[in-house]
Amino acid sequence: MKRTAFFVSDGTGITAETLGHSMLSQFGDIQFEQITLPYVNSREATEQAVARINDSARADNAKPIVFSTLVNEEHREILAGCEALLLDMFAVFVGPLEQELGMRSSHKVGQSHSIRDHEAYRIRIDAVHFALDNDDGARTRHYDLADVILVGVSRSGKTPTSLYLALQFGLYAANYPLTEDDFDDLRLPEALMPHKDKLFGLTIDAERLAAIRSERKAGSRYASARQCDIETRALEALFNRYNIPNLNATELSIEEISTRILAKTGLQRRLQ
Amino acid sequence: MKRTAFFVSDGTGITAETLGHSMLSQFGDIQFEQITLPYVNSREATEQAVARINDSARADNAKPIVFSTLVNEEHREILAGCEALLLDMFAVFVGPLEQELGMRSSHKVGQSHSIRDHEAYRIRIDAVHFALDNDDGARTRHYDLADVILVGVSRSGKTPTSLYLALQFGLYAANYPLTEDDFDDLRLPEALMPHKDKLFGLTIDAERLAAIRSERKAGSRYASARQCDIETRALEALFNRYNIPNLNATELSIEEISTRILAKTGLQRRLQ
Repeated sequence: MKRTAFFVSDGTGITAETLGHSMLSQFGDIQFEQITLPYVNSREATEQAVARINDSARADNAKPIVFSTLVNEEHREILAGCEALLLDMFAVFVGPLEQELGMRSSHKVGQSHSIRDHEAYRIRIDAVHFALDNDDGARTRHYDLADVILVGVSRSGKTPTSLYLALQFGLYAANYPLTEDDFDDLRLPEALMPHKDKLFGLTIDAERLAAIRSERKAGSRYASARQCDIETRALEALFNRYNIPNLNATELSIEEISTRILAKTGLQRRLQ
Repeated sequence: MKRTAFFVSDGTGITAETLGHSMLSQFGDIQFEQITLPYVNSREATEQAVARINDSARADNAKPIVFSTLVNEEHREILAGCEALLLDMFAVFVGPLEQELGMRSSHKVGQSHSIRDHEAYRIRIDAVHFALDNDDGARTRHYDLADVILVGVSRSGKTPTSLYLALQFGLYAANYPLTEDDFDDLRLPEALMPHKDKLFGLTIDAERLAAIRSERKAGSRYASARQCDIETRALEALFNRYNIPNLNATELSIEEISTRILAKTGLQRRLQ
């Protein structure tokens, strides 16, 4: 069974996609072809969107599912004419909100993912550059500025998590790889000691680590089951010894790792 | 006028926040204190969430606004007892979807931002590492693997955009800074010539560029109005000469730049 889902937005489409993905994930048995129609912010663009949705309806011989975050009333009326199940976020939620808040909404389009102010933009960009400059233990002299320093073995997800924390929350996240040298005597590297309270550990199951490493260096000692087993055990012992909060990241997405770090540490985001 | 908004989720909270931010941005005059309650996935956690919401209601002397993406029926019933305006995404959208699709939804919690499969995870991580390795013109020998190569002057948003394209869409995005040397004879650098069809340009208003650069090197020639004016003009001439698609990024967020690049180039994302 195949269905087409559309995410229609007057801006980036990110809200419509997020809402839509979330709802569609509740119907895992169905294969949805997913089409994002962003920047639908004119009469013409809306009519084109309707035409495209109706083409899909005919091709699939089934109603497409349309998640819309359009705000403009004229455009929403045009979209309402499409041959689809239309799930209109604005229509559903704005009424109760206006009533509770005792005011009309602004009906401004494209608000959600636009630049709110230059200060927020600067915080975000600075956080990204901090993550880049302090990736993979490249430098340790700026750790006094870090909000968090992720530690773990190679390929446990430290780098993408640091970048996500920067982009999404404006946090200054460094990361530092722990290696065999550190495991030999079960001591934290000297560079980390003054910043022990900023450390957060990522652990990973040995089997999964071996699979990830094998994708890049198949047959190497680095990717062997034995080596991965030794490293993951030593890592956990090190975290225990120094009482470093940590998380098993094996089956977690970058979003899950990042939001769980916030929840576990109580770290305050710099961007809402 | 102050109000508190809660984003309540059984998972990361990203969907609830995205939905909530989008709706709240329609009421720009109100200052919302925003509180995310992620991983509300037990009876106890839900009761704690209700208590916290009710505390806010008393403190503000006004109903909080609660955006919920909870899926579990028992937990949704508990949450429905809170003293707030409850906007329940699941309640609103799952009924029409079940009816149209002719099936019950899975009611599985935490689906939306979890790892769907290891292959998708690998694509994403590889894309992030590609962006890092090919940031700021550091290397050019892997450009045959790139989906897009962003070009522009220093501090026009190339790096965060590359990373966002990688994290969000799994795209292989490199970036290369164009400098005075390239503007002197209005020629593209040799390294870019074989990949001309992958180039995408970011432009920025001279005034804004000067402001950004001044934040880091105030009073320098690099940050001067004159220098920024010369560079931005030369850049546009270069883009025109080589017919390079481009975008003025001055007032755009990273999300807007990224999604407009997709829309303008027709580039297909590697991740949904």
